[in-house]
Amino acid sequence: MIDRSDIVAAANRIDRHVRHTPLVRLAAGELTHGGPVTLKLELLQHAGSFKPRGAFNRLLSATVPAAGVIAASGGNHGAAVAHAARALGVAAEIFVPAATPAMKVARIASYGAHVVQTGATYAEALVASRHRQAETGAMEVHAYDHPDVLAGQGTVAREFELDAPELTHVLVATGGGGLIGGMAAWYAGSARVVSVEPEGCPALHDAMRAGRPVQAPVGGLAADSLGARQVGGLMFPIAQAHVAAAVLVPDEAIVTAQRLIWDRLRLIAEPGGATALAALLCGAFAPPAGARVGVLVCGANTDPAKVADA
Amino acid sequence: MIDRSDIVAAANRIDRHVRHTPLVRLAAGELTHGGPVTLKLELLQHAGSFKPRGAFNRLLSATVPAAGVIAASGGNHGAAVAHAARALGVAAEIFVPAATPAMKVARIASYGAHVVQTGATYAEALVASRHRQAETGAMEVHAYDHPDVLAGQGTVAREFELDAPELTHVLVATGGGGLIGGMAAWYAGSARVVSVEPEGCPALHDAMRAGRPVQAPVGGLAADSLGARQVGGLMFPIAQAHVAAAVLVPDEAIVTAQRLIWDRLRLIAEPGGATALAALLCGAFAPPAGARVGVLVCGANTDPAKVADA
Repeated sequence: MIDRSDIVAAANRIDRHVRHTPLVRLAAGELTHGGPVTLKLELLQHAGSFKPRGAFNRLLSATVPAAGVIAASGGNHGAAVAHAARALGVAAEIFVPAATPAMKVARIASYGAHVVQTGATYAEALVASRHRQAETGAMEVHAYDHPDVLAGQGTVAREFELDAPELTHVLVATGGGGLIGGMAAWYAGSARVVSVEPEGCPALHDAMRAGRPVQAPVGGLAADSLGARQVGGLMFPIAQAHVAAAVLVPDEAIVTAQRLIWDRLRLIAEPGGATALAALLCGAFAPPAGARVGVLVCGANTDPAKVADA
Repeated sequence: MIDRSDIVAAANRIDRHVRHTPLVRLAAGELTHGGPVTLKLELLQHAGSFKPRGAFNRLLSATVPAAGVIAASGGNHGAAVAHAARALGVAAEIFVPAATPAMKVARIASYGAHVVQTGATYAEALVASRHRQAETGAMEVHAYDHPDVLAGQGTVAREFELDAPELTHVLVATGGGGLIGGMAAWYAGSARVVSVEPEGCPALHDAMRAGRPVQAPVGGLAADSLGARQVGGLMFPIAQAHVAAAVLVPDEAIVTAQRLIWDRLRLIAEPGGATALAALLCGAFAPPAGARVGVLVCGANTDPAKVADA
């Protein structure tokens, strides 16, 4: 299990490669009928999501072989690995499933990576990438289930706490669990970390009920960023120890959150990036009186026309 | 002429009504081939531009008559006045010219204001609004040529300096000059304030050459936000004293800036909001060695599909 010292080490390692993303503090009533909310705009990170934190930490913690790196991804992790590989001068091969939006495929290719689109889901793309890895000997950069990836993603919690130490609750979207695993390892109970998943992708919700990672459905609007079949084995004990709740939101609440983020803040959030906020809007998470709530807005890789026309 | 004390008073007056907008610090080479650049994301302000600062300061400094407030605008000021009027519980009537984009008209109306679209340019809408004002007795909220508006817009410079005291140069887009007038009054030479205008809307550039405000062309991509026929009489002596340069950029550089802001930062900037950055990209302003450059990204009210498809 990773701890704060791993995350501090990761932060120092990746410091010059990632953006310290800003906060916006919203007054009570601005977005919801509840109290004030502090948003961390991690969607302004390089490559349009939090994923470069873990990717850089992984690449900078290892000796990358001549064959370079290989990763499977719904899109955002692939973009981050491709971006990090280019920055560090190594080759990258990225496997994405058929459901990955064209703009994410284009983004990955724009960083010079070789993109292979195969399989119906992330899980199938992962299997294909592992067959390929066995041929090439490239270093696998797992999208979530690796200690260096977890520690890298945890650096976003360190920043959040540095800039907003007053928070009592932090809402985070969960896919395979690398982000919330890293963040829960940082907070470790000092703020209550709340997992938010779409009803169509309940991997952590189902795992918490079962007491172990279990296979879960993958579907709905945010499947390309949150559609892991099962949460990582490494993150699960961290979640059991330090994730306060795992709530689910309907796709309609995600669309409402995307619209509101555009209407009130002029930001484009992808469905997965708006999922944490959706829990506040639809009441899936109701903060207790006096709570000081933070929300991570974690990804922007979508077609803006879809958000604004919505 | 306004000074720092007016701006501090304005900041205290409007504090609970405006967002303290965040910075993003970009490393050397991220957007340009030059040094590091600090962006202030004023496009995340309420109503999608910096304009609520001046609007709130004007409304809160006066006793608004029963007839409410009236304003002429290319769109952003109108949205800000409508937003402020709703927040303060007074009626608003907003005059916009034919060129105002539909999404700005809709935004103004969404705040409950009465919108009148008339005239070909802002200047013509202003004339029409003044005829109407003589009938109704509503309080005019000028888009730029009023001390309370200047002082309100100046609060963005106070924030910028508080958060980035190291800056040596600050680039700002100029329309009628309320924003740069307020900002130049704040910095007053402590950082060099550089005006950036589209070649199609050179009001301050032409005024600086003539030694007085003169009528200038109004055209091009950013005309709906920067298309004042002539800079304000109140701002001009401030500009003569404290604006270091007034440069012009072609529309192509503005489009490039919009694309780059989306590609690298996942932000939607309207043409006027991307104009200041365009000066760095096209070389209209070349910072001297060792400069620490700040850029105000001041508006987001455009159709995102136009930016991302560009």
